[in-house]
Parts: sequence; C-alpha cells; structure tokens
Amino acid sequence: MEGYKAPQRDAMFVTHELLNYQEHYQKLGFDEASEDLVSAIFSEAAKFSENSLAPINMSGDEEGCKWVDGEVTTPAGFKEAYQQYVEGGWPSMSHPEEFGGQALPYSLSSIIAEWFSGANHSWAMYPGLSQGCMETIKAHGTETLQNQYLPKLISGEWTGTMCLTEAHCGSDLGMLKCRAEPQDDGSYSLTGTKIFISAGEHDMSENIVHIVLARLPGAPEGTKGISLFVVPKFNVSDEGEKLDRNGVACGSIEHKMGIKASATCVINFDGAKGFLIGQPNRGLNCMFTFMNTARIGTGLEGLAASEASFQGALRYAKDRIQFRSLTGRKNQDGPADPIIVHPDVRRMLLTQKAFAEGNRALAAYCMQLVDVTLYGDDAQEKKLADTKLAFLTPIVKAFLTETAQESTSYGMQVYGGHGFIKEWGMEQLARDTRICTMYEGTTGIQAIDLLGRKVMGSNGELLNVFVQEVREYCESLRGKAQFSAWTNALTSHLDEWQQLTMDIGKAAASNPDEIGAASVDYLMYSGYVTVAYFWLKMAVKAQEQLDAGSTETEFYKSKILTTGFYFDRLLTRTRSLVSAMHSGSDNLMSMPESMFAIE
Amino acid sequence: MEGYKAPQRDAMFVTHELLNYQEHYQKLGFDEASEDLVSAIFSEAAKFSENSLAPINMSGDEEGCKWVDGEVTTPAGFKEAYQQYVEGGWPSMSHPEEFGGQALPYSLSSIIAEWFSGANHSWAMYPGLSQGCMETIKAHGTETLQNQYLPKLISGEWTGTMCLTEAHCGSDLGMLKCRAEPQDDGSYSLTGTKIFISAGEHDMSENIVHIVLARLPGAPEGTKGISLFVVPKFNVSDEGEKLDRNGVACGSIEHKMGIKASATCVINFDGAKGFLIGQPNRGLNCMFTFMNTARIGTGLEGLAASEASFQGALRYAKDRIQFRSLTGRKNQDGPADPIIVHPDVRRMLLTQKAFAEGNRALAAYCMQLVDVTLYGDDAQEKKLADTKLAFLTPIVKAFLTETAQESTSYGMQVYGGHGFIKEWGMEQLARDTRICTMYEGTTGIQAIDLLGRKVMGSNGELLNVFVQEVREYCESLRGKAQFSAWTNALTSHLDEWQQLTMDIGKAAASNPDEIGAASVDYLMYSGYVTVAYFWLKMAVKAQEQLDAGSTETEFYKSKILTTGFYFDRLLTRTRSLVSAMHSGSDNLMSMPESMFAIE
Repeated sequence: MEGYKAPQRDAMFVTHELLNYQEHYQKLGFDEASEDLVSAIFSEAAKFSENSLAPINMSGDEEGCKWVDGEVTTPAGFKEAYQQYVEGGWPSMSHPEEFGGQALPYSLSSIIAEWFSGANHSWAMYPGLSQGCMETIKAHGTETLQNQYLPKLISGEWTGTMCLTEAHCGSDLGMLKCRAEPQDDGSYSLTGTKIFISAGEHDMSENIVHIVLARLPGAPEGTKGISLFVVPKFNVSDEGEKLDRNGVACGSIEHKMGIKASATCVINFDGAKGFLIGQPNRGLNCMFTFMNTARIGTGLEGLAASEASFQGALRYAKDRIQFRSLTGRKNQDGPADPIIVHPDVRRMLLTQKAFAEGNRALAAYCMQLVDVTLYGDDAQEKKLADTKLAFLTPIVKAFLTETAQESTSYGMQVYGGHGFIKEWGMEQLARDTRICTMYEGTTGIQAIDLLGRKVMGSNGELLNVFVQEVREYCESLRGKAQFSAWTNALTSHLDEWQQLTMDIGKAAASNPDEIGAASVDYLMYSGYVTVAYFWLKMAVKAQEQLDAGSTETEFYKSKILTTGFYFDRLLTRTRSLVSAMHSGSDNLMSMPESMFAIE
Repeated sequence: MEGYKAPQRDAMFVTHELLNYQEHYQKLGFDEASEDLVSAIFSEAAKFSENSLAPINMSGDEEGCKWVDGEVTTPAGFKEAYQQYVEGGWPSMSHPEEFGGQALPYSLSSIIAEWFSGANHSWAMYPGLSQGCMETIKAHGTETLQNQYLPKLISGEWTGTMCLTEAHCGSDLGMLKCRAEPQDDGSYSLTGTKIFISAGEHDMSENIVHIVLARLPGAPEGTKGISLFVVPKFNVSDEGEKLDRNGVACGSIEHKMGIKASATCVINFDGAKGFLIGQPNRGLNCMFTFMNTARIGTGLEGLAASEASFQGALRYAKDRIQFRSLTGRKNQDGPADPIIVHPDVRRMLLTQKAFAEGNRALAAYCMQLVDVTLYGDDAQEKKLADTKLAFLTPIVKAFLTETAQESTSYGMQVYGGHGFIKEWGMEQLARDTRICTMYEGTTGIQAIDLLGRKVMGSNGELLNVFVQEVREYCESLRGKAQFSAWTNALTSHLDEWQQLTMDIGKAAASNPDEIGAASVDYLMYSGYVTVAYFWLKMAVKAQEQLDAGSTETEFYKSKILTTGFYFDRLLTRTRSLVSAMHSGSDNLMSMPESMFAIE
C-alpha cells in the first residue's frame, strides 16, 4: 500500500467548520488553541504519522514482537519512532502544566490519535495504553502518587498499562482473583496473573507503570470487592526516580491474528509492591471515570482503519483497469477502464467514505463533549455533556469498530485476489482492526450498556435528550427544500427510535432477556441514525460554504453527494434491524442448549 | 480449537431425507450408490477429515509453504496426508471406470469435499484444483490427451491446476497476454507468466498438469481470441509416462492473509510445450463447462468454514462461564453461567447454525442438479436442471462465501478477545475463508453474472423457473397451519423478487449501470430467499419425521426452531436490501471520480 495520508482537511472541516471548535476552545479557556495553532499541530502530527509511523507498519506486522526470558523486543524502528514521539512532546499535549504537560484540550490530542492509529495501529497501542494509566492516576491517585508517577509518564519516559483481564474473566470482572495483601509500610503485595495486557512489557521506555485490579483480603465477592492499584515494573522513589526491579514479570506474549507489533502480555505479579488508588473495593468505579475516553479511543481505532482502507482502495480503484464501463468507455487510450467506473466498486468505496467521514464527525462531537465534562465551568452544561456522552460512548465504541470490519473487508474486496496478498497492506488493516470489536468491551457488552444500563436504566431519558438535540436541528431546517427528504427521513427515524425503545422496555418488563435479544440490533440502529444526523449537518454546512463562495467546490459537493448515498443505502439498513428487533427473544431463547449440538 | 467433526448426520439428512438422493441415484443408474454405501463412504471420509486433515490444519498455517529455487515444500504432514488420500482412492471416486475411476456420482464426492475443506482448507486446495483440470481434459481433450493424462490424474499420482490469471488481468480475462506458438509437431510453445496459481508447484505429486489460457498468433483481441492448453511440468509420453522437465517454473509464491499452506504460485512458461484443448479461440467457452462445479466448489469452502467456526464457537459458548443469565442462574454450582445463556451469544450461534445447515441444503440441491446434467438421459430434465443450475450457481458461490465471512467473524466474537488469539483456531478460519469471496470470480462478478447475464439475459426466465418450483412447493403446504406464517412470508418474497426484477430491468433499459448498482444486493436478496425455501422444506421434513415417530427428537426439533430463527432474523434482512436496490444508480454514479479523493 502506498503511504497513509492523515485526513487533515477533513479533520479541520469537522472540528472547525462543522462543530465550531474555535469558539468551543475559547469558551473553555483554551485561548492559545487558535485555529492557526490547531492547524500547525495537525500538520506536524500528519508528518509524524505519514513519515515515521506508516513506514514501519508493514515491517512491524511482518517482524512482530519477540519474547525472550521475560524481555520483549518490539520490531525494528518502533523504539526510535517512540523516541521521536517523546521528543516531539506528543505524550504531554493534553496534560496539566504542573506535571510538565502542555495543557491543551483532550479533543486535540484525540483527533490526531486517529492518525497515529491509521498509520500504525500496533505502534499506537503503546502510547494509547499510557493515556489510560495517566488518566487513572490523575483522577484517583494521591498527591504523592501523582508526583511520583505523572511527570515521567507525561513526558513519555515511562509508559503505562491497564491490567484488568484474567484467564477466566474478561467481560465479567466480578470473578477476578488477583490478590493484594496490605503491608506494614502502607503498600500492598500483589499476587496473581493477568492476561491480554497490551504494552505490558517492551523495550520502548525505562519503566512501565501497571494499573491493576485486585482483591483485598476479605473483600466482598463480585464487582463490589475489587480495588485498584498502581504497580510499577521498577520501584519508584518518593522523588519519582526509578529504583530496583519489582516482582512483576512478563510470562509470555500472545500470537495473534493482527496488531502483531503490539505486545499482548501475560503479566505475573509475584508479591509485587503496589499502592492503592482510590477507595478500597471501589476499583471498578474508578475505572468508569475514564471508561468513556478509553472506549472512544477504541472507536477511533476503528475509524482509523476505515479511513486507511478507503485510501488504499480508492488508489487501486483509480489505477487498476479491468473491463469497460457499461455506459461507454471512459479511458479512451487504454485497453480497459479503471474499475472505479463500475457501480459496485463505487458502492464499496462510497460505503467506506461514508463511514470514515460520518464516523469522524460523530467522534469529534463526542470529544467536544469530553472537553466540556473535563474543563467546563457551567454545571448544567457539564451535566448535559455527561448525559449525552454516556449515551453516545457505547455507540461510538461499537459502531465505529463494527463498520470498520465492513470497511476493511471492502478495502480488500476492491482489490480482488490482490486484497488477500500481504504486500498491498489491505489485509493487514482487516486483521489489525478485527480486535476492536472485542477488546475494551465487546460489541455485545456495549450493546447491553447502551440499551440496558443507559437507555432503560434512565427510563429512556438518555435517549430522549439526544433525540431532542436532533429534533431541534431538523426543526431548524424546516422550509429548506434541498434537505427536506433527508430531514423527513431522519425525523421519522427519531419517532421510530423512541417507539422501539418503548416497545422493548414493555417486553422487557416481563422478560429481561428481551433486552439482550434486541441489544446489538438496537445499537447498530442507533449508530446508523446518529451518523445520519451528522451527515445531514455536514451537507448543510457544505452548502453554506458553497453559498458563501468557497472555491473548494469538489470537497463540499462530495459531502452533499455522500449524504445522499448515506441516506439511500446505509441509513436504510435500519429496515432489517427493526424487523429483527420486533421479532423478540423467543426465537433465540426457546432452543434448549443441547439442540444446538451437531453430532 | 478442538477437533473438527464432519457433519455426517446433517449431510445424511439433506441428501437422503430432504432431497431423496437414494431415488435420485437409482434413477441415474447408480445402483451401487445405496444408502448403506453412502453412509459407509461418509464414515470413512469423516475419519480422514477428522483424523488426518484437521490435525495438520493449524500447524500448516503456522509453517506455511516454502519456496527455494523454484521448488515448493508443503508443511509437515501435507504430503503424507495426500498419500493417504490417494491410497484411500478418494481422487478417483467420481471419475469414469475407463480411466481407473470408481464411477460414483459427482454429488457424493462433493458432499465430502465440504468436510475436507472444513478440516483443512489449505490442504483441500491441492486435490480441489486437480478436479478442475480433470474435468477440462475429460470434457474437451482429445482421446490421446485423455489417455495420456487422465489415468494418473484420476489415481492422484499427478495433480493439476488452472492457469487463468495474469498480473494485469483477473476478472477481465480478455486482456490476457500469454502466447502459444504452433510447432511443427502439432504441439504449441507457451510463453508468459501466470499468477495466483493454486497448487502450481508443490511436493505432493510426481507431475503437475497445468491447464493454461493463452493466445494463438493473430488471435482476435479480447475474450474471443483465447485458447486452452494442457501444459505439464514434466513432459508425458504417448503411454502417459513422465519424461523430461518442461519449460515451466515456479517463480515465487505469494505471502497471504490465509490458506498459507496452499501454495499460490507465480508460474513462468518459457517456451513450454503444450497441447491445444478444444477449438482455437474457444478457450473461455471450454472453461464455462466446468465453471458451475468450480463455483459450487468455492461455495462449499465457505460452507465448510461456517460449519467449522460454528462448531468451535458452540463448544466455547457451552464451556466458558461469564455472568449470570438474566432470567435466573442456570449453572447452580458454578460462579457464573455458560455464555450460551445470553441472548446475543445465541443470536450469533444461531446465525452460524442457520447458515451452515441452510446453505448445506442449497448446496446439496445444486449437486443433485449437476448429477442430472452429467448423467441424466431425459433431455428435458437435463435442460431444466441446467437452467436451474445456471441460476443458482452464482448464488451458491457468492452467498455461501459472503455468509462465511459473517459466520467466521461471529465465531471469533463469541470467544471475545480469545477469538483473536491463534491457539483457538477461530481466527484462522476467518483468514482462510476470506479468499472465497475473491477468487473464482468475486462477489461482484457473480452478482453481474446472476442479474445481468442470467436473469436479464433470459428476460427473467431463469428466475421464473426457480420461482415456479418454490411457488409450487408453497402451494403444496396450503392448509398446514404450522407452516403458514413461513409459507406466506416466502410467497410474498417470491412476488417481490419478480417485481424487483422487472423494476430493475425497466430502469436498466435506459441506463445499463442500473444492473451493476443493484447487483450485489440482488444476489444477497436471492440468497436469503433461496435459503428460506430450503429452511421451510427442512422444517416440513423434520415435522414429518417427528410425526412418523422418530426418536431423534432433538435433531428434528432443532430444524424447526432454526427455521423460525431464520425467518425472523435472517430472511428479514431483505428489507434493507430492497430499499438499497430501489434507490437506483444515481447515488453511486453521480459523484465525479475526482471527488472521491481525500486530500
């Protein structure tokens, strides 16, 4: 595959034209974050993605990580790229100045996180996990812990991990067994084995700081007996200097379908010294505080893959000649036409484009909400942002990663048999992004979170708040004939969405399995409708820019045309989802377990 | 993943209970092919698949093929398994006695071809390609060529390939460049390079017989100037003995996403000696004669992956405990319930089951039609079978392989993060089967074949013939209340299918791109409706067996329950497909090529 291009122009469109980030940043007190500064940062981030990360993506997949006697070596160039990342000041962008950060808004570092992942998903895992670790210490660590750990994490000298999963429990963390024994010096001694620890061991940083879920002695069973600890690979002095090795070791790394250059580790804690974060037995609650951003981060990985795969497929579709267009030859001088002339190739490319750009707008909107929850000073606005974010987070996590499966598959399909061959890079995108619907909470878990916990748990309130926003927007377009077909389609989906929710709620009152039976279809339905809202907004904004005399006519017209494609061919997927949801849970639950068996 | 189990019972159900193969075989004169013999062959084929092929599936993926100086080594155990296959007489099953074959029906060897592929897709590629080669020589080779090549191909001592693709042309074979110069001795000298040649070079057989598409000097441009040749790796005496090496060499093998143990070769012909098969310039027509069986064969690979993935996911779903059922704990003594209690896990498993079993019935029906075209003596019946087969072949090829993508993805998803780890084998199934929608004609090519060439090309006649069969069947169920909801749903789909076809035909009359714009959705629509027909038939047959007092109540009841699931949750996917088709081609074609570009 030819070089990855960071979608700078589109990111500028969604943030500064569509979502008015400039005003948003000013309102939150980020006066330095001017459009010019953002644009300069975008440009540097694009260079780093395109020139430093993309070139080691395929070689990283080929080489993979090596585990020898507990030490993990990352593929050639990974360490050097990380060093460049640290020197460029990227890790500290959105962190507080008191710990050496640059105090720029969360959304700014998140927009470019898509590009790092799009250029090299495996590489981006290492700094990505670090963010989770930092957020947790920032939000719940004591001042002592913050002073010990944050400066070197924020500078990037150290990296971090999140240690949740054990062999017998992933989704159901209530069953976890890792133990933490209190010691006389106020520390804890941790013992147990964690699996699937991304960036758990590697050669890119001096120290690795693990955030670990474990049980205190006598803790209640289930999720209410889990506490959170910080456990460094090398112990740390009060002044934040690296000391001797702690009882933490990497037992092995996994052999995986994709993201092979990301070390997925078994981490053994053998009487390792750790420190409590937050209150005893309240570990899962501490985790929830950064769950939204971690899940949006995974959604961004899906978006990144959709974008990268679209770029690859588009290049090939313009270049590869095969057959003639049925409406007359387009490539007069060649022996055949480029395959982009064929309607079905366009169907695949437009699906990729619509997902990449539509999902990017939704993601950027969520990042804006995160900014408000983090930096806002109006309590009511913060609460509203929090409400919307709670609702949209499972949608972003699951919809952006599920659609990435389809996008990356189409990316291969456009190449025909060549899509299956490693040298084009299209199959790597599909393999790498396959993990995204599984880690950080599977699609099924997101769907239960959305429909059960968020929507039903709020008696529909979380849905209604978002629907209200969309409805008001549709109202504001009344009388604009150009958009009326789309506005009507969206409005009737809003009605249907609320009705469906009531129907499922009613059925679930007597049978709780109705929630699970409808959940994934409900989530995908919600995703299609939500992204339709953003496509409508993009079309309206694009028309405004054209009316204002913009010379970027191709860019803006393509937004309007893609909106048409989305409403015609992607939003209409809700028709089947509605049928499936209406069919209820009996068709899933009535078959006894033994009948599934084949002989 | 635990061992693969060949679906013997289900194969017996579809062939002998549902489709009445016993009577079918008798009518075609296969008197020896009694139910007992079939059952005995199934049992041996199951043993070979489970005990010889499945155990080297994962190791084969791990090791891959090695290319050194033109020689290809297959992974450990592949050669030995092939030897066992030859000794077991499997290659000769459905070939004529005059060349050493066993003269058993095509359908019998095809049913078990699913199992070989399910146990080890890569391994099954080698004998699979050989079949294509043999069919071509049987149908179009001179008597001399048949006597020279068929005995050792049929015995399995030699294997064969099909050499179509070149670097610059895959779908559009009209552009191929490989040249064949006539020689004084009546042979031809072939020069050119073919790519993507499965089984093009390996260490499993003494000789490799290539069927090669090439151009004669002065041949017309395009598809009407292509001729077909047989070109052996080692030249062959008139008596069919291996002689000296021919000018055929393997230049390299591809590095691929999956089927890594299947050698995908670049084959260089450098003045290689070949022999014409069929008439000059009629090479593509010769290919079409076995295209149906080759495409059904690819469909079977998809089916095989769906079945294998279902088996793996089902085992895990019964074994893995995580969370409690929302309707009360099911696993009283354990700390959590097996995940098969959760509705969304069941949705995924039932989707896999419905595709595996429903698609198997459709495939077995098509094999029955192939039998009639090959062995029937009633011209009218043969013609009818040929008509139905022409219609169903692109559906089988594309629908069985597209649904395999979803099935194998669900197989991973049921495992959560573990699905991404190699040791469980679930990700290999997804990688291996990914090629199936691309090779042997992409889904897009199948869709154009179905809607353009077959349906529109026959003015709807090919569709109407099949619809008539389904309609009559639905009629025959009139008054059976148990099935009326399904029968009604199916009947209204038949009406809609015909109406849609007319609508698209009308639109295409003024704009030929309307065919391509609707084609893949039309194909998937056709697949869902066709498989619904077979699920209805299976439910009816299952109820008959229950009424007749069968003690296999779980087996038959599961068929009826799965039919309900299929009609509720899979057939209803047609709703979105219809919306997409109705939206027409403008939303695909109106965007200028340059507007697809991102900056």
